[in-house]
Amino acid sequence: MTLDNRLQKKIDEIKNVDKKTGEQARNYIDTLTKPQGSLGRLEELAIQLAEITANPFPTVSQPGIAVFAADHGVAAEGVSAYPQEVTAQMVLNFLQGGAGINVFGKQINALVNIVDVGVCVDVQGEQLINRKVRYGTGNFLKEDAMTKEEAVQTILHGIEVSENMIDKGVNTLIIGEMGIGNTTASSAILAVIAGADLNKIIGLGTGIEPEKVKFKRDVIEKALGLRKPLQNDPIDILAKVGGLEIAAMAGAVLGAASKRVPILVDGFICTTAAILATALNRNVKDYLIIGHQSMEPGHQVAIEFLGKKPLLDLQLRLGEGTGAALAYPLVEAACRMINEMATFSSAGVSQS
Amino acid sequence: MTLDNRLQKKIDEIKNVDKKTGEQARNYIDTLTKPQGSLGRLEELAIQLAEITANPFPTVSQPGIAVFAADHGVAAEGVSAYPQEVTAQMVLNFLQGGAGINVFGKQINALVNIVDVGVCVDVQGEQLINRKVRYGTGNFLKEDAMTKEEAVQTILHGIEVSENMIDKGVNTLIIGEMGIGNTTASSAILAVIAGADLNKIIGLGTGIEPEKVKFKRDVIEKALGLRKPLQNDPIDILAKVGGLEIAAMAGAVLGAASKRVPILVDGFICTTAAILATALNRNVKDYLIIGHQSMEPGHQVAIEFLGKKPLLDLQLRLGEGTGAALAYPLVEAACRMINEMATFSSAGVSQS
Repeated sequence: MTLDNRLQKKIDEIKNVDKKTGEQARNYIDTLTKPQGSLGRLEELAIQLAEITANPFPTVSQPGIAVFAADHGVAAEGVSAYPQEVTAQMVLNFLQGGAGINVFGKQINALVNIVDVGVCVDVQGEQLINRKVRYGTGNFLKEDAMTKEEAVQTILHGIEVSENMIDKGVNTLIIGEMGIGNTTASSAILAVIAGADLNKIIGLGTGIEPEKVKFKRDVIEKALGLRKPLQNDPIDILAKVGGLEIAAMAGAVLGAASKRVPILVDGFICTTAAILATALNRNVKDYLIIGHQSMEPGHQVAIEFLGKKPLLDLQLRLGEGTGAALAYPLVEAACRMINEMATFSSAGVSQS
Repeated sequence: MTLDNRLQKKIDEIKNVDKKTGEQARNYIDTLTKPQGSLGRLEELAIQLAEITANPFPTVSQPGIAVFAADHGVAAEGVSAYPQEVTAQMVLNFLQGGAGINVFGKQINALVNIVDVGVCVDVQGEQLINRKVRYGTGNFLKEDAMTKEEAVQTILHGIEVSENMIDKGVNTLIIGEMGIGNTTASSAILAVIAGADLNKIIGLGTGIEPEKVKFKRDVIEKALGLRKPLQNDPIDILAKVGGLEIAAMAGAVLGAASKRVPILVDGFICTTAAILATALNRNVKDYLIIGHQSMEPGHQVAIEFLGKKPLLDLQLRLGEGTGAALAYPLVEAACRMINEMATFSSAGVSQS
């Protein structure tokens, strides 16, 4: 089977969420000992989880975090506040347990997988999952970021990683990333796929000087003019202006959705990857939960494009999956609400 | 020692938070492996916790939830969607572990204390802490809610409960309440103490019909005209239009602040109680963390009066301490960030 056929087969496996079971959950929630609707968005979340899992009493007791790392050729243009070597250094930090995502992952007892899909140097580590497709993308100001075959291969790696985690018992997937320069690639992708104004998308990334934002926009504008990615072809967009970790995250989303596992999406880069996955199969959207509202302006555009609302708004802009990991306890709470609360009749409480 | 003297002694024990230690925490946070400021409000929270505990590496590993329950004479006017008997029924539900606060309290491994300070019937339960001061307040449309001595006594009970929990190892206090009619009492208190417009405060409570909101406002307006509580005298306000659980929560806040323990405040009624505590000692404000933004419009007014920002905004309006319990993992995450993340130098990561 060709790479394309393998991907298409997986895409076709993703079914509609189960609205009927969601309705069952909604009716049951109204019998719990609380004023109707008084747990607000937690109730909506419980219903969505019932729809995703096709279980009126969903559980999300085992979160898994997949962090995909890769480098970006476009970093050579000076679009990031950090040197490119930081990608590999941070991968080592992940492996040693010292990064934000390790700390918040430990708090929620998550299985954490660190995956190298394209860091531009060799990284050693017993716990590292090596699925390196190439040593960083090409600088998309000068050449395509990768070939279409590489894009498809990277998506397939993402699918494999998420399915392996699910096979190990993970029932909520958190996706995260590390890649110096990846807000630039994500901005390019989102501008194409959402047809959005670059000025509304581009921000400070990990912290460039405000005066460099215009420069970053000019780089992306010029690259889009040269590469001409096709709006309705996610593989073409990934190949021309994408990122390897972005392709892998899109794959991880597809893998989880095909297994009816809810996906807790982090910030701007993750949400852009989730949009690519949604472009491959519209059903994917209903499997997505947006963990938080990032400070990066493009995240707002991406969330609105998906028609979603984030759970948290804490002015985060770290990435790695941290915002999603921080939101996980709310997803757990939604499940506990429906599984553990007493009903008016079981508790003998009068209704209004 | 008279009741008043005992209360004054406790109020005087509450010291300023330690800004110098907060500054130390702020500087240390900037050495952690993440772009500066990229964990947004989590960083502010860690600094506040350092200030409160006078420890640059604060820990909040043991949350405690104190739920105070009492009845309200004004419920006889028909200001609530639920009959008064629900207060006692819900106390039994708390004791059986079936309510929202039990479920979310279990999720965060909290010590949960249920305290009867004025339910209008006798409630039996081995785990119930009985500090009943009277069987419900008087209907403040017709008489004072309680005497000043009762108000002071109830505050002292709240102090005792929170100090006992802290003695048992609790290092973060979550306060919650149950009391049919208590948004009416809280609205009256807030209107007086914040000098705020009743129209901006009054909402649907647990779920009255929209057309009953005007009736609820008229009851409060008339009561305030008859009782004339003194804006700068929290004890007078509590006695005239207050609630027993509200007085006890104000006390619990005072007790925790006196022990330098952070207080995670729930919704409208809790925040109103916290404002009363702040009126007794201005230092209290810096010990408060607002867990969530409630749907009850008065909560917005109360939060702004304190100059605070809530951590969550999930359209909750249940009470019991649920919104604060749901926010607790963020407080824990802030501590873990500062205690567990690697620094740029320890991890060998290049800075920008």
